[in-house]
Amino acid sequence: MSKGKVAALVGPKKVEIKEFNLPEVQPGAVLLKVRRSNLCGSELHIWRWHHPVIKHAVLGHEMIGEIFELGEGVTTDYAGNPVSVGDKVVPAYYLTCLKCRSCLRGDFNLCQNAYAFWSQPPEKPPHFTGTFATHYYVQPNQYFYKVPDSVPDAVAAGANCGLSQVICGLDLAELRNGESVVIQGAGGLGLYAVAVAKEKGAKVIVIDKVKERLEQAKAFGADYVIDLNEFTTLESRSREVQKLTEGDGADVVLEVAGVPEALIDGVHMIRPGGRYISIGNVNVSKEFEVPVAPGLITRKCAKIIGVVRYNPWYLYRALKFLERNHARYPFDKLTDKEYGLEEVPEALQKAENRVVTRAAIVPNK
Amino acid sequence: MSKGKVAALVGPKKVEIKEFNLPEVQPGAVLLKVRRSNLCGSELHIWRWHHPVIKHAVLGHEMIGEIFELGEGVTTDYAGNPVSVGDKVVPAYYLTCLKCRSCLRGDFNLCQNAYAFWSQPPEKPPHFTGTFATHYYVQPNQYFYKVPDSVPDAVAAGANCGLSQVICGLDLAELRNGESVVIQGAGGLGLYAVAVAKEKGAKVIVIDKVKERLEQAKAFGADYVIDLNEFTTLESRSREVQKLTEGDGADVVLEVAGVPEALIDGVHMIRPGGRYISIGNVNVSKEFEVPVAPGLITRKCAKIIGVVRYNPWYLYRALKFLERNHARYPFDKLTDKEYGLEEVPEALQKAENRVVTRAAIVPNK
Amino acid sequence: MSKGKVAALVGPKKVEIKEFNLPEVQPGAVLLKVRRSNLCGSELHIWRWHHPVIKHAVLGHEMIGEIFELGEGVTTDYAGNPVSVGDKVVPAYYLTCLKCRSCLRGDFNLCQNAYAFWSQPPEKPPHFTGTFATHYYVQPNQYFYKVPDSVPDAVAAGANCGLSQVICGLDLAELRNGESVVIQGAGGLGLYAVAVAKEKGAKVIVIDKVKERLEQAKAFGADYVIDLNEFTTLESRSREVQKLTEGDGADVVLEVAGVPEALIDGVHMIRPGGRYISIGNVNVSKEFEVPVAPGLITRKCAKIIGVVRYNPWYLYRALKFLERNHARYPFDKLTDKEYGLEEVPEALQKAENRVVTRAAIVPNK
Amino acid sequence: MSKGKVAALVGPKKVEIKEFNLPEVQPGAVLLKVRRSNLCGSELHIWRWHHPVIKHAVLGHEMIGEIFELGEGVTTDYAGNPVSVGDKVVPAYYLTCLKCRSCLRGDFNLCQNAYAFWSQPPEKPPHFTGTFATHYYVQPNQYFYKVPDSVPDAVAAGANCGLSQVICGLDLAELRNGESVVIQGAGGLGLYAVAVAKEKGAKVIVIDKVKERLEQAKAFGADYVIDLNEFTTLESRSREVQKLTEGDGADVVLEVAGVPEALIDGVHMIRPGGRYISIGNVNVSKEFEVPVAPGLITRKCAKIIGVVRYNPWYLYRALKFLERNHARYPFDKLTDKEYGLEEVPEALQKAENRVVTRAAIVPNK
Ligand SMILES: [Zn+2]
Ligand SMILES: [Zn+2]
Ligand SMILES: [Zn+2]
Ligand SMILES: [Zn+2]
Ligand SMILES: [Zn+2]
Ligand SMILES: [Zn+2]
Ligand SMILES: [Zn+2]
Ligand SMILES: [Zn+2]
Repeated sequence: MSKGKVAALVGPKKVEIKEFNLPEVQPGAVLLKVRRSNLCGSELHIWRWHHPVIKHAVLGHEMIGEIFELGEGVTTDYAGNPVSVGDKVVPAYYLTCLKCRSCLRGDFNLCQNAYAFWSQPPEKPPHFTGTFATHYYVQPNQYFYKVPDSVPDAVAAGANCGLSQVICGLDLAELRNGESVVIQGAGGLGLYAVAVAKEKGAKVIVIDKVKERLEQAKAFGADYVIDLNEFTTLESRSREVQKLTEGDGADVVLEVAGVPEALIDGVHMIRPGGRYISIGNVNVSKEFEVPVAPGLITRKCAKIIGVVRYNPWYLYRALKFLERNHARYPFDKLTDKEYGLEEVPEALQKAENRVVTRAAIVPNK
Repeated sequence: MSKGKVAALVGPKKVEIKEFNLPEVQPGAVLLKVRRSNLCGSELHIWRWHHPVIKHAVLGHEMIGEIFELGEGVTTDYAGNPVSVGDKVVPAYYLTCLKCRSCLRGDFNLCQNAYAFWSQPPEKPPHFTGTFATHYYVQPNQYFYKVPDSVPDAVAAGANCGLSQVICGLDLAELRNGESVVIQGAGGLGLYAVAVAKEKGAKVIVIDKVKERLEQAKAFGADYVIDLNEFTTLESRSREVQKLTEGDGADVVLEVAGVPEALIDGVHMIRPGGRYISIGNVNVSKEFEVPVAPGLITRKCAKIIGVVRYNPWYLYRALKFLERNHARYPFDKLTDKEYGLEEVPEALQKAENRVVTRAAIVPNK
Repeated sequence: MSKGKVAALVGPKKVEIKEFNLPEVQPGAVLLKVRRSNLCGSELHIWRWHHPVIKHAVLGHEMIGEIFELGEGVTTDYAGNPVSVGDKVVPAYYLTCLKCRSCLRGDFNLCQNAYAFWSQPPEKPPHFTGTFATHYYVQPNQYFYKVPDSVPDAVAAGANCGLSQVICGLDLAELRNGESVVIQGAGGLGLYAVAVAKEKGAKVIVIDKVKERLEQAKAFGADYVIDLNEFTTLESRSREVQKLTEGDGADVVLEVAGVPEALIDGVHMIRPGGRYISIGNVNVSKEFEVPVAPGLITRKCAKIIGVVRYNPWYLYRALKFLERNHARYPFDKLTDKEYGLEEVPEALQKAENRVVTRAAIVPNK
Repeated sequence: MSKGKVAALVGPKKVEIKEFNLPEVQPGAVLLKVRRSNLCGSELHIWRWHHPVIKHAVLGHEMIGEIFELGEGVTTDYAGNPVSVGDKVVPAYYLTCLKCRSCLRGDFNLCQNAYAFWSQPPEKPPHFTGTFATHYYVQPNQYFYKVPDSVPDAVAAGANCGLSQVICGLDLAELRNGESVVIQGAGGLGLYAVAVAKEKGAKVIVIDKVKERLEQAKAFGADYVIDLNEFTTLESRSREVQKLTEGDGADVVLEVAGVPEALIDGVHMIRPGGRYISIGNVNVSKEFEVPVAPGLITRKCAKIIGVVRYNPWYLYRALKFLERNHARYPFDKLTDKEYGLEEVPEALQKAENRVVTRAAIVPNK
């Protein structure tokens, strides 16, 4: 029986590589060989043992793999395309249970059992529940899609997290061509958002404090950037956004910064009747609270919309988006360093120290 | 030339009755004789001189009147119905300029010139710019509608403020039949909201701290009430809402309480993916801020929607709503005391002292 | 091993009762004991051998059953409610494959594999693929919901076909309170539609040619009825609808008549900008074509919306609708005669001869 | 007093140039000097005396002008931008009365008084009611917008008819990036539609029978074209669309062909759940009827949406669209010949004979 390896968290900032027999593939499931997996910020959060639940766990969730074994009854991906061993695919990193109260409303992005199989303890079968591993086990009812041939691994590996989510978020914003969108934060999600908003014909303004990121934002098509080092007050930033939007304020603000104060900035920056999409802020404890006057929301007729994950078919749209556009943007520069599976501890430490910004794990190289 | 009178604010809590010649009616305008005008909470706010701009001003905005004189070219109301002198009508209390940046988007409720003629200094022509007066001057492009014959004055007088706004708010909530709606606050707007939500087939839960108001809410059809004296913590209230909604949380929370903390309550009370409609909170200064974790909005996929005024045709819908439903609800009990025009100072003082809760001015009785 | 029986179509209008061993219940599947099954019009269509594909087949699709055996892993229904043997449930009559091009867009009502297991030849396992049978086999990924205790069998049995579909159709019409809806056809679907539209606060006008049906429509809450025997021309019907809608025309027309000419009537009856929901017409061959001037659709800014089946969670909403409302409407009179399983041939023949209008099969009585 | 001239229809295909005193400009109105006016197909229709109402009339409706005189109270355009004499502007060619039953619903594109002042008999004041004239009188409540400096006259002149309408139509189609849109007809509207759909990130397929038009469609960015001379049957065209859309059928079909059969083609070409936007077909008489099986609409869950005119603020969006994009597309080649005012009869005759395809009138050259 074949074996595979996983990078498992065994204590705070402590990772070990462990070996297990490859699991038997149940009907409806699929076993993948991991081709490439990104080191996303939420992995660092888990690695520091800050996550409330995930402690002993196989790490990794952003990935592209190839089909290693198909469970009984699996003949197509979730777009109806025939699949066979060796095909490159990307899975949603969460489950769609169909049976919880959120699935009951068609809100699959809110499935209350989404993480039932995510990053489990390594000893627990089927072992391969994270993507920092040689293999990854896709559960029945876990969506996956074939990757278009023309899309390189380095580009596809981020599709199942950030890209799908910003496409979903900008759809919820009902962004129309000619509208202005301010993107708070030029990290991976922010850069994706620039490209997606540009394809929708929007005017794009990006805010960040890191010069290199603002440069990247421009390379991704941002029409304007606002450097937080230059515009240091809420007032100056709001004024700048107004100036860049013919005095209106932004039609849409998309938050992918993960900074609570961004909410206040955003509500000030939108025009009357504008929309604010909240993606990056996910912490709910006291220290992440900011003071908000509800009257501001009322008077502005603001629409504030929270977005968690994405309906799973957005992953398909993300892959099609990449197929259409990857050559037009420097997607391949989003990761700056590759590591083997044994180097996962090093990759995490370097990401923590900000020596690398976006590391990729290539476990089978 | 005929004369008329207005109740004018001339200092903090200082009202004088003043007499003026009736104005010449310009093309497109209409002069009304006021039949009845409600004393709405925002009038008290102005009367205390707390309003940032309105100081010396004719008071009053909720009203029903009858046509006294039609300006040249006015042959119908804004529903295309022919009008003539003596017809009972209700005007929107604000203008639709058609030419500002909000009107440019069809967001007439956000018209930036909405208040260009509202509650002007009494000496300024056309003098009759408030409804605590014998007459009221309806500007060109100020929407007005005939009142259905069957709707009594006491019922119609509140249509152009609270009722239109809650109908608009519940439409923005895209409330569907069978959904649950929590209404924060059982004042005038809250009671209207109960009736509107019930007509939409919703399950209605009302929260307030005044026993009489909760009783009224039941009379208007509320399925459940939550007494703030009994449920004194955020946790207990959220738990109660969950209990009343099969464990889900509310599909919609509608805030008409004017209490900033209601936002926090509301975001906790809605189900994942639920909507929060903010109407009552309109103050934006520091003391009206409450601590909010943006991550809570993200994680819940909450939709927070501010609502100011209403698209002017909602006033027509409000009148049709009353035509269909007024006999089924105790709308006529929403005002508890009538005053003549000379008694406006007394009415305001009594409202301030909470001796009366909802006073009506009947200036021509 | 236990046995069960099915009523199987073996030739044109030829039905035989056949006995089979009860199937082994696969993981994710459920075996039901049928409590009651309605004889819906589409069954007659199949029975006459007019269906293009279904020839040798177990009959029946509208039903309520009770859980006889739960497949491995099935612990809840599709609303997350725990289930156990003996619980009353209703299944959607079709599958949701999750993997076809329609499921890819979240259009589960359009699933291209919806009928993969519907009304199969009786010899083909699992045999119990229709509801005119003692038992019925619910496939994995076939939605089913527990029936609220208060809802009688006779009321619940039609939920999974007509009621779910009209709720879905009226949601797609974005019907708002106070709007007018004309319902073309007062059969089972039409009567359901009356009740649903009334709960949404609509003004309801029903058109049919059968006096008893129009009477029933009134009993279900219709505000007005139009008798086709009295209004015999397109012009007279349109005029009547206009008269009943203050000269506007209908906001919405819902077609559940199955008569092609209804489309022409409907497009004439709606107001400019009105919506036409097409449900009853499902035949596409030449003899079902009617002449339409596309310019009429353009000039009216009509929205014509076809509705097939329903997103499966509408079945849950249908059951909740019945829980809220069944006591207010004569739902129990929708079926007028009960038959045992052996009497299915007789029931079909009597339905064909219109001796009974809506028969119910009670196979285990 | 200054004088101006108009090209007036005085009989079938009979045009005379007439001179009148320039009208006094009423409060709220604006008098324009016409810079350029396109000869749109509907003018030919009128010129042939085929229009049911317009017989003796000043011709012309697509135009760009400059402000000649501002009526009292007019200080801005309908985007709130200050205006003064000499500014280049474009008016909507119809009125928004605010008071009819359609305006009552915010459906300004359906205003029932839209044409109250359009193409009146020349003798009737204010005489300048068409744009084939030296001057044009913009009524109060007739929307107009300043033209961005960078947009040439030849590009702006078509904004107030075709371009605004297709932007509106594609918004109603809720076209999303990555979706496919088939455009039926590559005339002026069709070419505009290509550009608009491309800016929205769509995949665009254009159908026409004229080789030059298909070439132009490609120049405007069409991804694929279908030549009706090559694909001569409904089946072959549907198959080709399916082939170009990965087997799905088109997400959206936009009809700007004015050919009734296009409806049938379109309903066959869309995917299940697709949208069909009807713009070009506007005739309603018997000879424009085509046979349609309503069941096809039902089974496909098609959405058929008629679009007349546009909400007036779409004209502003059209001008902003041109400002962003005019340099990227050969908009300036959409008109192929310029005529002076005296040459209007010749221009009409040449257009009728298809000697020129899109003529422009430059009346003050
Ligand atoms: Zn991630
Ligand atoms: Zn779920
Ligand atoms: Zn008020
Ligand atoms: Zn305005
Ligand atoms: Zn049925
Ligand atoms: Zn499917
Ligand atoms: Zn035109
Ligand atoms: Zn109008």
